[in-house]
Amino acid sequence: MPQGIRFTKMQGLGNDFIVISSQALPDGVKELAERLCDRHFGVGADGLVYILPSEKGDFRMRILNRDGSEAEQCGNAVRCVAKYYYERISNAKKELLIETQAGLQRVWVEADGQTVRRVCVDMGKPILKGERIPVKVNESQVVAHPIEVEGETFHFTAVSMGNPHAVIFVDDAARFPLKTWGLRLESHPLFPNRVNVEIVTVTSREELQMRVWERGVGETLACGTGACASVVAAVLNGKTGRRVFVRLKGGDLEIEWKENDQRIYMTGVAENVFEGEWIRSF
Amino acid sequence: MPQGIRFTKMQGLGNDFIVISSQALPDGVKELAERLCDRHFGVGADGLVYILPSEKGDFRMRILNRDGSEAEQCGNAVRCVAKYYYERISNAKKELLIETQAGLQRVWVEADGQTVRRVCVDMGKPILKGERIPVKVNESQVVAHPIEVEGETFHFTAVSMGNPHAVIFVDDAARFPLKTWGLRLESHPLFPNRVNVEIVTVTSREELQMRVWERGVGETLACGTGACASVVAAVLNGKTGRRVFVRLKGGDLEIEWKENDQRIYMTGVAENVFEGEWIRSF
Repeated sequence: MPQGIRFTKMQGLGNDFIVISSQALPDGVKELAERLCDRHFGVGADGLVYILPSEKGDFRMRILNRDGSEAEQCGNAVRCVAKYYYERISNAKKELLIETQAGLQRVWVEADGQTVRRVCVDMGKPILKGERIPVKVNESQVVAHPIEVEGETFHFTAVSMGNPHAVIFVDDAARFPLKTWGLRLESHPLFPNRVNVEIVTVTSREELQMRVWERGVGETLACGTGACASVVAAVLNGKTGRRVFVRLKGGDLEIEWKENDQRIYMTGVAENVFEGEWIRSF
Repeated sequence: MPQGIRFTKMQGLGNDFIVISSQALPDGVKELAERLCDRHFGVGADGLVYILPSEKGDFRMRILNRDGSEAEQCGNAVRCVAKYYYERISNAKKELLIETQAGLQRVWVEADGQTVRRVCVDMGKPILKGERIPVKVNESQVVAHPIEVEGETFHFTAVSMGNPHAVIFVDDAARFPLKTWGLRLESHPLFPNRVNVEIVTVTSREELQMRVWERGVGETLACGTGACASVVAAVLNGKTGRRVFVRLKGGDLEIEWKENDQRIYMTGVAENVFEGEWIRSF
């Protein structure tokens, strides 16, 4: 057998990653990402994630997308690497500081012995001011604002979590014709940078059902910042408390918008799917 | 680490399989196939293939599709399991007899020491009689027959390799608008069971470029029976010799339609992509 590259395949809410621990990024890592992420000729994943030494945090993460480009940050990948690191380091702290291309990220693991069950990520403070989201509504909060698309009127609440979201509450998110309206809402002139669209049903004071239309992508299984935005919107509309379970197609997230520091804490699972060793083609 | 299921991920022309060697199919294998073949939450593959003991051949193969249903036979999977078996058995014969749900399949491996480079598969005799393909043209051979679709006229040659194919020769297969014409040709009333469509450019007496529209699926990376049908059609139209390289999106196949026994022999690569151990979710 030729010598291969050892990796762990992990997923968070269906967003899946090839995780590799290394001292440095290898030469040709963009080509390697394209090759390994290919779902027919390679291992198959949404991204290739390296865990590297860091001088600023417990470790550093770098995320290569399927096309070889680098992602600054990804909530689902952060939970995966926190689990990976904690389960392999004896006596690791439960609070970890992870160096990312977007800065330092603080996370907390919930572990059962050495096995990490869930990971909580500090998602920062939501941005609510219209012009900073950006949405072309000149208000300090854009809540239940009407939007007209081809004769149909929806009401959206706008929230930025670093990326813009328009949250729309409906009676039955599962039956909402997202294919019909997703792109039209995303590219509505109210949103100069376009927008991610969340279609949300309130099932109790502590629970939301959510579907997401990601800007430039279409409907996806899950979106962490979208789940945060939906809870902020639910609180602003008086529909839920500040601690809410969000049920997404890819799985569940527990979101808390803390009163004291106004920051959002997102907790969810990450899973080991398989261990593998990639064999160079021969 | 919990005990997992060891597997090898293999591919032939981009058609990818999780290969497991076992004494018997496990209970709940349909659910396992669905779970393992899922590309986000599982290992990800087109199929789950078991290599099992056989009393009739060297071994037996069973192929579970992604939806848990069973496939009778698959040319790409056969090459993969032949490579898998040969590389793991010392002093294995180069000619192997594989028991499939569709009967016994004879294959020959081309090996470099213990490493299998290519595998040749006996694909049987082509069926050329119109009514047996079936195509509603009452002739013993349906060669360069006109077909009209929405005012456009193409010329097709009909061949069955157990499944029906319509081969159309064009000057530049790469630029052919297969999305426009694929489904319309597939479901043309000339083909009572619908048809697989091959769009083929002759680049020399020994080489074809081929794209394939698979019945019920759409354009795919490769189709082994389609490559065989294309060579039969090229011979019947006097465009090539009987031994031809077929270049497909997913890779190359060497096809020979032998004069002496009228059988078709298809040779192509199979690759080990990675070794893995699936971890039950926890």
